[in-house]
Amino acid sequence: MRAIVVRRERHEPELIELPRPDPDEGEVLVRMLRVGIDGTDHEVLEDGPGSFPPGDDHLVLGHEAVGVVEDPNGTAYETGDVVVPTVRRRLDDGPNEYFDRGEPDMAPPGKHRECGISGAHGFMAEYVAVSERRLVEIPRRLAERGVFVEPISVSEKAIEHAYASRSPFDWSPQRALVLGNGALGLVTLAMLRQEFDDIYCLGRRDRPDPTIEVIERLGATYIDSRETPVPEIPEEHGGMDFIYEATGYAKHPFESIRALAPNGVVALLGIPDSWTFEIDGGSLHTELVTHNKALIGSVNSNERHFRRAVRTLRALPEWLFDELLTTVAAPTEFEPAFADSDDQIKAIVEFASLSDTSDQ
Amino acid sequence: MRAIVVRRERHEPELIELPRPDPDEGEVLVRMLRVGIDGTDHEVLEDGPGSFPPGDDHLVLGHEAVGVVEDPNGTAYETGDVVVPTVRRRLDDGPNEYFDRGEPDMAPPGKHRECGISGAHGFMAEYVAVSERRLVEIPRRLAERGVFVEPISVSEKAIEHAYASRSPFDWSPQRALVLGNGALGLVTLAMLRQEFDDIYCLGRRDRPDPTIEVIERLGATYIDSRETPVPEIPEEHGGMDFIYEATGYAKHPFESIRALAPNGVVALLGIPDSWTFEIDGGSLHTELVTHNKALIGSVNSNERHFRRAVRTLRALPEWLFDELLTTVAAPTEFEPAFADSDDQIKAIVEFASLSDTSDQ
Repeated sequence: MRAIVVRRERHEPELIELPRPDPDEGEVLVRMLRVGIDGTDHEVLEDGPGSFPPGDDHLVLGHEAVGVVEDPNGTAYETGDVVVPTVRRRLDDGPNEYFDRGEPDMAPPGKHRECGISGAHGFMAEYVAVSERRLVEIPRRLAERGVFVEPISVSEKAIEHAYASRSPFDWSPQRALVLGNGALGLVTLAMLRQEFDDIYCLGRRDRPDPTIEVIERLGATYIDSRETPVPEIPEEHGGMDFIYEATGYAKHPFESIRALAPNGVVALLGIPDSWTFEIDGGSLHTELVTHNKALIGSVNSNERHFRRAVRTLRALPEWLFDELLTTVAAPTEFEPAFADSDDQIKAIVEFASLSDTSDQ
Repeated sequence: MRAIVVRRERHEPELIELPRPDPDEGEVLVRMLRVGIDGTDHEVLEDGPGSFPPGDDHLVLGHEAVGVVEDPNGTAYETGDVVVPTVRRRLDDGPNEYFDRGEPDMAPPGKHRECGISGAHGFMAEYVAVSERRLVEIPRRLAERGVFVEPISVSEKAIEHAYASRSPFDWSPQRALVLGNGALGLVTLAMLRQEFDDIYCLGRRDRPDPTIEVIERLGATYIDSRETPVPEIPEEHGGMDFIYEATGYAKHPFESIRALAPNGVVALLGIPDSWTFEIDGGSLHTELVTHNKALIGSVNSNERHFRRAVRTLRALPEWLFDELLTTVAAPTEFEPAFADSDDQIKAIVEFASLSDTSDQ
């Protein structure tokens, strides 16, 4: 079968032939439909995976995926069920409190592997064998958009954690700001639209631009960071009750403290490299305290967030995904899906469509 | 009546004569028993109050207080009830959503006054008139320790907010660290003793020292920051699940990110001055995200926290307060209560004792 991988010491995706996996007991054979590409995939290519799966000199890429059950292999699934795999896996067969209680997203580095990212093969292949306990079923009619379940689940978790931090008091947030106009930022902006009177999205693009079009069609205000840097946002638009940081720009957490309204919260999702710079730490400390502000780091997501993401996916408008899915590449011509251009919002590799599999 | 005030342009406390207040409708006349002094009082003296009460060139000091009802003035209170006043007051008679819903602690600067701190007289006087809605009753047998209700309530809120941020997942914290060995830090250490297997308190004092004695009597480990700076704490003692910052040292929030265990949280309470310094913001950002860490700023407390503080006060051992209350000064000889010495942990001014008032 075809698989898109990164090899040891290489930094480009490659299409290779691999044997079709043979599912172990408790595993389902999934025929992949679509696999998305995000910033993490680009980092895996650039820096190499955290580690390669034991014994292998390649890593199958991809952690955002949707597929269809080809062989239930004695599990509760049925052939034709549309499924999304979760990302984290146990490191070994030993006890792992985080996985044992269904919270692999809370397992620290060193206590998990991540499919397509570190230590475990990803989903960018025609077939994948996945433990039934690491699959979430989604409605067949959402199959084409199913590739968004994983990124939405990551936002579900971040929003859940940020909101929880505000739960001891009567928080009535009105203004939300998303830092970053990539696919994840735009989907999150759409998620926040239901809850907030005013939503804003920060980017650094000139018009005309497809992401700015999506931002405005969502009823949000585009903020060009070259004109209005984050610390100046309150003056221009008012303080933000909730800020969602998805750029990985290292200064954002610190700049965001100033951009928050009193009692506001920042959810941090980006993973920047080391970068030393000056901050007025005294004023930021005081600002956090006297205005009851919070910074919440969040990574990954668990099955509960995946299930919530399926509901969110159903609720979001279809046009959004049509606009976001700018690049649908075949595995034999995957290069455009890994290219970087301002016209591209979300790129995916399509291994099969549901109609292909129904024909069988 | 006697009152201890700071005058405009002065930086020393002064004992002056003021007319005994005449309670308005809905106000109770409280005879003060004891009023505590904390870092905020020293800041008010040094920098001046945020503002003086309208029309006055002096501010009655003190926001940690316990008193006894002298005249219920038609309210639901009875003469002899022991009461603790809360600290924040409305700015004016206009609507104020925060006060309306019982959450003055969430009112941002500009939406409240603080007794003894900014815009409203404090409690360091023989008599104070307080709205019945700004009083919390405490058991008579806790009267002597009642001065600790306000500081404990501040910690109750900070702990509540920090814990809430960890509520979406199964958090089983084991190690807690209090930054600061002042009275507030020591009381909080005692509060955390119930919940944590291992508690630590950071200070910068040489032995023998009365605060280190209290730390060790509580079963906690003293960490000398000159020997083990905050970022090195995990190496020495393990990562901390919860860090409570009460020093106002501007670098603590940033250093604490490193000292946290995965999924840990820092509650920030200090209010430092502006101070610009370098941080590796990229690594701190990544650390917050990949380890699901959080920073929660918290200020003040509301009536719910005061009520919880009364329960906490009842549960904490009596010896603790005997050890903490190193200085009990009469109003006519208040100077030692405002002095700064390593032998002093908590200083209070005692205007009356419950037995004085019972004699009446």
